[in-house]
Parts: sequence; structure tokens; C-alpha cells
Amino acid sequence: MPIQSECRNRIANLQRQLERKELDGALVIYPIDLYYFAATRQNGMLWVPQSGEPLLLIRKSLTRARQESCITELRPFPSSRELSGLLGRPGQKVGVTFDVLPAAQLDYLKKVLPEREFVDISGINRNLRAVKSALEVARIRHAGEQLSKVFAQVPDFYTPGMRELDLAAEFESRSRKLGSEGYVRMRAYNQELFQGLLVSGGSANQPGFFDGAVTGCGLSAASPHGASTAVIAPNLPLMVDYTAVHDGYIVDMTRIFVPGNIHPEVQHAFDTALKIQRQVTAALRPGAVASELFDLACGIAAEAGLGDCFMGVPGEQAKFVGHGVGLELDEMPVLAKGFDVPLQENQTIAIEPKFLLAGHGVVGIENTWAVGPEGGIRLSPADDAIVTLPT
Amino acid sequence: MPIQSECRNRIANLQRQLERKELDGALVIYPIDLYYFAATRQNGMLWVPQSGEPLLLIRKSLTRARQESCITELRPFPSSRELSGLLGRPGQKVGVTFDVLPAAQLDYLKKVLPEREFVDISGINRNLRAVKSALEVARIRHAGEQLSKVFAQVPDFYTPGMRELDLAAEFESRSRKLGSEGYVRMRAYNQELFQGLLVSGGSANQPGFFDGAVTGCGLSAASPHGASTAVIAPNLPLMVDYTAVHDGYIVDMTRIFVPGNIHPEVQHAFDTALKIQRQVTAALRPGAVASELFDLACGIAAEAGLGDCFMGVPGEQAKFVGHGVGLELDEMPVLAKGFDVPLQENQTIAIEPKFLLAGHGVVGIENTWAVGPEGGIRLSPADDAIVTLPT
Repeated sequence: MPIQSECRNRIANLQRQLERKELDGALVIYPIDLYYFAATRQNGMLWVPQSGEPLLLIRKSLTRARQESCITELRPFPSSRELSGLLGRPGQKVGVTFDVLPAAQLDYLKKVLPEREFVDISGINRNLRAVKSALEVARIRHAGEQLSKVFAQVPDFYTPGMRELDLAAEFESRSRKLGSEGYVRMRAYNQELFQGLLVSGGSANQPGFFDGAVTGCGLSAASPHGASTAVIAPNLPLMVDYTAVHDGYIVDMTRIFVPGNIHPEVQHAFDTALKIQRQVTAALRPGAVASELFDLACGIAAEAGLGDCFMGVPGEQAKFVGHGVGLELDEMPVLAKGFDVPLQENQTIAIEPKFLLAGHGVVGIENTWAVGPEGGIRLSPADDAIVTLPT
Repeated sequence: MPIQSECRNRIANLQRQLERKELDGALVIYPIDLYYFAATRQNGMLWVPQSGEPLLLIRKSLTRARQESCITELRPFPSSRELSGLLGRPGQKVGVTFDVLPAAQLDYLKKVLPEREFVDISGINRNLRAVKSALEVARIRHAGEQLSKVFAQVPDFYTPGMRELDLAAEFESRSRKLGSEGYVRMRAYNQELFQGLLVSGGSANQPGFFDGAVTGCGLSAASPHGASTAVIAPNLPLMVDYTAVHDGYIVDMTRIFVPGNIHPEVQHAFDTALKIQRQVTAALRPGAVASELFDLACGIAAEAGLGDCFMGVPGEQAKFVGHGVGLELDEMPVLAKGFDVPLQENQTIAIEPKFLLAGHGVVGIENTWAVGPEGGIRLSPADDAIVTLPT
């Protein structure tokens, strides 16, 4: 099974980092991290010593973890008393991901694994996860192909007078039938997303918690993002920014639809977004500096006279043009101000130049790419052009 | 606005608990907790001193928080340097919810708020949230009414030969159009749910990470719960266990459909589930002990000769028959072994007696109830009976 050699590689990479940081081992607990390193997302804990065989302890379901996992040392979760004897020994330094491990869980670990020093390996984990294998790139490509089919069908299921929510529900339903798992994981503490954002005309100007150019109105203050019950407006851009999740891997795409006539300002901003996409992705090679690609995008926006509405309304502009994507929607690297790091081959990045046009709404494009030696390799094939819809 | 007096009450209740525990204040950060106490789920932090006015600091979006929140002292998030001067003072004891606060966030708080002692108030928060106001009960009832409409429509959109996934997608789409926000929040570290579980026949026997009687196969090892691509089996029970989320409030319901003939064993188990529902909900009054209601349910199951398949296959039986539900799917109280606590009026609880029948699949019922002086008050009106579908 290819997944077994995958997991072996991933664990070997982690062990190399543990050695470099002089850590004796790592405990992998967060569900999607467990899936990455052990090929199962059951409820349990993976112990990865600096060298030697990892040990997977499962609370629920042991049966299912045995079916799925690539880890051969696999046992039912032991009593708290037994745990310390199984996972290294007192005096050791143990890595855990402080970015997602609740304080109560860390207190529990300190109790059941006494005399260890726990060290944050969030950065190590994010950097390992950022560079994809061929299998991972293929999974994102598969997700991109499936989601592209749904985008292509929009003219078939759009009817004039629909609310944002109606079109979102139809879109989601088709994506699900094509195999999207739906559940979009985000790592940042204050972020969440239900599948995507479908935002028409003025809805785009409603600011929100979401770390992107657009949030949308959503359905209530409890879920203030994405589609609302507003009717999709004629002659204004409709942004469909959606994910699909296959085998845990997320693809992220945006297309613009206009019921009726495309205003020249809308077309100009859209053409500028395409130009940004073209130039940024041409530069999406190993060694390119993430923050410089953001600067490149800002320069093209400014040159087109659209600098002050790039990635947000004036005063609330997001300071990025792309983000890593994989098992989580907010992976490394980010093409953003301050990210002065070189890209690596097979990092996968959603690039989403967008403009917030006063009186129109949001216009832009988003596709998911792999960093390649000759520039970005596209993983989301749907046609980019604005699609007009009937009014 | 009623939400303003709601939030005032909620904050006053929290302040009473802070006083009782001799804490000087609490920091509310987790998005859904912020929504509960401040009526907005923007990205920020609410400071609740033991007495006096709370202060809401917002990272993004300040504009939206101002539109939504009931908190009058509302400011843009200050610099780390200013923070300490705004939130109490050195030497104070500050409550935070360790159950969901990442260790990295706690480290950040310790840095920007030096010389405070941070104390876990997860239990206080959960207990406050468990008892609902009239408005909260009304919101769950509204969610129950909407979700009941979708359940009633299943015979209209089911067609023989559908896969679990197809029916799930149709169900989800209708629920969304009726206003469900979709995103189901769970507090437990290792749990997640995408809207619901739709499980036919033998799929019910696939064990999994989910803390319930049934998990389902799901679509991959990354998302191993809920609907799979298996075709819905004739003459076997199809369990549709779904949530709807309105204004953040979750209702949880299960109905059984059978394409074709209902086997007498299936009907017997279903009748037993109804009997458990009847007797447990009749006892759903203030003062009733949660664990005793679980014992009551187990007794009825045993009496019907179904004790060893109640809430799971033999050896993997879940040790509960109901769970609190509200802004999160896994709220307090739990009707479970070991929960020797008295119920309180207006706690809202999903009660879900289920049987895993070898050779058949899963059979049971689930509705959401409020604890009332005369017994459980039903919040999910759809008819309980098994519905037969064409084959």
C-alpha cells in the first residue's frame, strides 16, 4: 500500500526534526495530525520516538484504527498508570503542538507523563505538512477536478431570484455527491468555515471575522460568514468561493458569475486579477520569496489603479494573496507581508487575488497550485472566465 | 432588544460564579463562548471583571462586532503593551476555559498579562451554558421545527438505488435552504461532525471514533463518519441522525426509514426505543439524577431482551442515552453512567435510545427535549414512527 511508505517517510522526516531539535520524541494527538502521520483519524495518540518504531494507542475505535493505520505497533489505550512506561521515560524532552493542544490536555500529559519537559513543535509540524508528496498533490488535484465539475454546472442550477443560500445549498449538494467530505479543517484558533462563501453584490462589503478578503453576511451572528438569505442581485458579481475535501485534502477555488451584464469596472478588476494570477503563478518556483510574490501582486493591482481595494475595502484590506492548503485550509506558506521565506517544491498554495469594488461587490479568481520547477502547477482545472447567468 | 437582557443575565451569572470561586475576572476567547456572552462571534476577547462592566476587544471585525454585540464597552484590540492595563491588574486570579484554550494561547496570555494566576473555569462555563433561557429554548425549538420538515420530506426525495451519500446530500441541501447554518460545533478535543450520520444496514456495524452508538463508514479514513458511497440496502433500517443549526443553536434528531419490509426484530427494538423515550422523558424533571435515567433506559432494554446491543455492538456499547445540546452538540448534562447530578429546569437534552441488531443495522429514535416541571418538553415535533420507503 502506498500509504504505508508515505507514513514511513513522514515519520522519518519528523524524527529528523526531533533529532535536530534534540527532542527525545513527539506525541501526535490532534486528529488531523494523527491522520497525517498514522493514516487514521481515530481517537488516540501516536508516540514517535527520536529513533525506532512509533507506537499508536487508540481509545476508539481500535478495530477501525487496525483497518486503516500504517502503524504496526498499535494497542488499546492503556491506563494512566501504564502510560508513562510506554512513552519514553522521565527526564526526556517531548514535542507536542501547542498551537492546537488545549491547556487542559497539556496538564493531563504533565500528570500522566511526569518529569518530562514538553516542547512546542507547532512550527515543525506545519513546515513538514507544507511540503506535499506526489500522492498528496494527486489528492488535491482530484479534489480540484471534482470541484471544477460543480463550478461548470452552476449555469444549469442557477435560476433568477434565488437567494445566496439556495444556490449555496445546490452547490454543496452536488459537491457532496461527487464525494466531498464537507468538513473543512482550519488550524487557527478563531477561524471556521462551512464549505465556502457564496456572496452576491453588496453582501461582499459586510466585514467579518474571517481571515480573507471577503466574509459574507451568513445566516446569523452565530454563523456570520458565507451565504445569506439575500436574493442574488442582477448585474452585480456573484462570488462563489468554495472548497472540496477528498481523502481529507482540501482544494480552494473561486469563480465569478454575473446574472445579466458585466460592468466595465468589474471586467477591468477581473482582468487585473487574472494578470496577478498569471504573474504570481509563473513565479511560483522553489526559492521564490513568499512576501515578494505578495508585493508583486500589490504592484500589479496598484498599476491598474486598484491598489486601494485589493483584498478588501479600504482600511480593512487583507495583507496576503495566497495561503497554503492541504489537510487544513490555513497551511503554510502564506503569500503575505512579512513571510520572507523561500518557497519549496510541492508546497500547495491557493492564490486568490480579489478586489472589493464600491457599488459592485467582489471580483477575483482563485485556484490551487503546486510549487513547481517551471512555475505553479495548476490543480483546479475549471475555466477562469466570468460566466454570465440569465436575469 | 431581548438579546441585550439575555447577555446581561449571562454575564451576571458568570460574575456570581467568579465571586463564589474568588476569581477577579474571566477572559472569554473561544468563539462560541464569546457569542454566548457577547452576542457576537467576531475574533476578539471579552474581559468580565468579578463586578462592573465587561470590556470587549475586537481584532476583526470591529464594525461587525459593533452591529451585533450587546457589550457597550467595545474597542479595537490594543497592542500587547496596552493589554495589561485594560484587563484587571497584576496579582489577580483570572478564569479561562482550559478545555478549549490552546497551550500556545495560554502562554501568550501569561506573557501579555504578567503576574496573573490563570484558573480553569471550563466547568463553570459548561454548567452555566447547560441551563437555557426561554429565548434559547425557543431557538432550539425553531431548529427542531425546521429539521422536522426535512424529515417529513424524505419519502419525496428518496429513490431506490440511492447511495447513503446521495440521500445525505439531498437532506443537507433541504436543511440548508430552511436556514440551517450547517457548522456543528463540538467541544470535545477529538470529536467532529459534518451535519449528521446517515447509515444504512451493515454500515452501522463499522465502529469509529465518534462518541455515540453509531459512527458510519464515511467517505475516507480522513472523514470516517456518516454517509458512505454504499447503496442504501432494501429491507434493512436506514438511520438518519441529523442536526440543524439556527442562530447557533443545535437540534439533534434521529428517524428510521426502511425501504421495503420491516423485520419483526427491527420493529421490536424500535418499540423498545420508544418505550425508553417515553419513560425517560416522563422523568425528565428538575432533581432527577442523570445516571439514574441511564439506568432506567438500560433496565427497559434488558427487560426486552436487548441489553447486550443497547447503544452499540456487544463490547463497544456507549454508556449513555442522552446528551446536553445547545450551542455545542456535546453540552452538559449527559445521561450516563457516573453522572450522579440532578437535572435542572431548562436544560436541553437529546435522548437517543438505539440498538445495534446483528444482521440488521441500527434502530432507534432521537428527539431533543427541555427539562420541565412535568417532565420533558419536546422540541422536535416530527412523527416518531418508522417510515417505509419503496424498493
